[in-house]
Amino acid sequence: MSYLDKVKWNEDGLVPAIVQDGRDGRVLMMAWMNQASLEKTIETRRTWFWSRSRRKFWMKGESSGHVQVVKDVALDCDGDTLLIQVEPVGPACHEGFRSCFFRSLQDVAWAETEPRLVSPEDMYGKPPK
Amino acid sequence: MSYLDKVKWNEDGLVPAIVQDGRDGRVLMMAWMNQASLEKTIETRRTWFWSRSRRKFWMKGESSGHVQVVKDVALDCDGDTLLIQVEPVGPACHEGFRSCFFRSLQDVAWAETEPRLVSPEDMYGKPPK
Repeated sequence: MSYLDKVKWNEDGLVPAIVQDGRDGRVLMMAWMNQASLEKTIETRRTWFWSRSRRKFWMKGESSGHVQVVKDVALDCDGDTLLIQVEPVGPACHEGFRSCFFRSLQDVAWAETEPRLVSPEDMYGKPPK
Repeated sequence: MSYLDKVKWNEDGLVPAIVQDGRDGRVLMMAWMNQASLEKTIETRRTWFWSRSRRKFWMKGESSGHVQVVKDVALDCDGDTLLIQVEPVGPACHEGFRSCFFRSLQDVAWAETEPRLVSPEDMYGKPPK
């Protein structure tokens, strides 16, 4: 029996993967993995995902160079969510923030809680889509 | 314009909500919120979710007493995932572990990485479903 058999993929063959900076616990991003991206993540120790909007297998950092070095892969009790500990090389967010969760609710509006580290233009040579 | 308008609910009207212990950054669980559960979470400062399997609005801790006191609610860049910082009262996992992510991949199998704090029988008076 493979470790893959414990993972409960949804009707589209995907599970959400939470990516956390293993050094200080900052949650960086959430993206979706299919079986191939989980296997590739484990094999290469880099994070690979499935983009639902682009219908594309992708490696974090393939455009920006901001790869994530995988330190641990955990599975939740229901088998339907992954938690990946990484050492990130550069910001996780395509908008140039360290974490995609750079906005928090303050009173009744979302306010930025961390600085932008790099502009999307500098990261990709063009504004993000 | 309401803060709710920035949230991109999926086709079922849900977003994944990652719950993190604000004291040390341990990721505790992931569950789904609809608009009513997000509003209730903010209003009561306790975590409320939508159970897809039971089709039911529920408060974390309503059976076990292990509520989560909400300290912060963050939204990611795409607006489709929430990150909630909490102070948990007791284990998050219905199996009695502090975190639902109590298993990590070691070699080619999932191995427990933290102790069970309480048995499900002690928590609910019966085994978990």
